[in-house]
Amino acid sequence: MAPKYKLTYFDVRARGEPTRLLFAAAGVEYEDVRITFDQWPAHKDSTPMGVLPILEVDGITLSQSMSIARFIARETGLDGKTRLERAQADAFVDELEELIPKMAGVVVFAKDEKDKEEKSKELDKLIAERLGKCEKLSGSDGHLVGNSLLWCDLVLFNIAHNIEEVYKAGTMQDYPKLTKVCDTVKANPRIAKWMAERPAGMFDF
Amino acid sequence: MAPKYKLTYFDVRARGEPTRLLFAAAGVEYEDVRITFDQWPAHKDSTPMGVLPILEVDGITLSQSMSIARFIARETGLDGKTRLERAQADAFVDELEELIPKMAGVVVFAKDEKDKEEKSKELDKLIAERLGKCEKLSGSDGHLVGNSLLWCDLVLFNIAHNIEEVYKAGTMQDYPKLTKVCDTVKANPRIAKWMAERPAGMFDF
Repeated sequence: MAPKYKLTYFDVRARGEPTRLLFAAAGVEYEDVRITFDQWPAHKDSTPMGVLPILEVDGITLSQSMSIARFIARETGLDGKTRLERAQADAFVDELEELIPKMAGVVVFAKDEKDKEEKSKELDKLIAERLGKCEKLSGSDGHLVGNSLLWCDLVLFNIAHNIEEVYKAGTMQDYPKLTKVCDTVKANPRIAKWMAERPAGMFDF
Repeated sequence: MAPKYKLTYFDVRARGEPTRLLFAAAGVEYEDVRITFDQWPAHKDSTPMGVLPILEVDGITLSQSMSIARFIARETGLDGKTRLERAQADAFVDELEELIPKMAGVVVFAKDEKDKEEKSKELDKLIAERLGKCEKLSGSDGHLVGNSLLWCDLVLFNIAHNIEEVYKAGTMQDYPKLTKVCDTVKANPRIAKWMAERPAGMFDF
C-alpha cells in the first residue's frame, strides 16, 4: 500500500512549496493542510520542533523543510539517478535554500521602507553570489544536474518564481542556464497543472 | 574497487570535521588534505563554489560541507537504517549545522571584546534553542535516531566538543540525552583512536 503523506504548512508557498512541487511532479497524492497564522499558536506545541512545515507519514512526524523535501525526492526518485547526482543535487539545494527566508524578510516581514531597503541590498548581494555559483555549475541543457528533472530544479524554480514575480523582475535574465532549468520545470505538464490550479495563499510568496 | 576519496579543507575542524569523523567511524581510507589560509587564495578559483571543504571522488568535485558529509554517510551506511531514519537524521543536522559558523564567529572571528560579547549573547540563545529542540526529540539510549550510530550523532558530537572544550564548558549538562549521545560517540573505538591521533590544526576549533 502506498504511504499516506500529510503536509502541514501555512497557507503560503515559501518553505512548503518545494515539497508541494515534488508531489505534483511525481504525481503522488498527499493531504495539503494549510493553516492560518491565527490557528498557529494552538498547533505550535504539538509540532516536534515548534515550526512548520511538518510531514506526517507512517506514524512519524518529520520536520525541517529541506529534509522533508529531500525525503519526498527520495520517495519519488527525484533525488538523483546516481550516488553522485544525489550529492550534487544536495549541494545546489544547500546553496539556494537560504534565499527563501532572506527574500521573505524583504517582501513579507520588512518593518518599514528603510528596513526594506537595507535588507534588499543584502538580498541582492546574496542572490548574485548564490545564483552566480549555481549558474557556473549548472548543466546547460535545462537541468542543474544530469539529464533529468530533480528536486534541486524545483527548489530553484520556486525561488526564481518568487524573484521574478514578487521581488525583482528581470533578475533571472543574468542567469541563462538557470533560466533554462526553470523553463524545463515550467514545461513539465504536471507542474504546469499545479501552477494553474494551486491555491493563491494568504499572500503572494 | 573501492572509491578514492580526497577531502580538502583548512587545517581546522569546524565544517570539515563531521566528514573526517564519518571516515573514522566507518574505517574508510581517504586523503585528508589540509591547506593554510596563506595557500587558500591560490586554490580558491579552482574550487567549484569558491569555498572549502570539497570532496573529490570518481572525477567529480563535491561542495557544501553537509552535502559532503551526507554523501559519505550514505557511502558508509551511516545515513540511517530506514527511509524515515534518514529523514530524521537529516532534520537533526539541519537543526544543528548553523551552530558551527555561529560559534566560529565568536571563538575565531570576533573583532574585539565588545563584538565577542554581543555575538556570544546571540549564540547562547541559538544554542539553547537548537539543543533544546534536539534534546526533546532525541532517543534516550545514546542515539539521536534509532539504535545505531548515525552521521547526525557525529555532527552533534563535533559541535558539543567545541562548546565544551572551546566555547563554554558546562553547557552540555543541561542536555542529558544529547550528552549520552556524545558519550556513545566518544566510546566508539575508531572515534576514540581518531580523537587521540587527529592533527591539532591551525587553531582549536
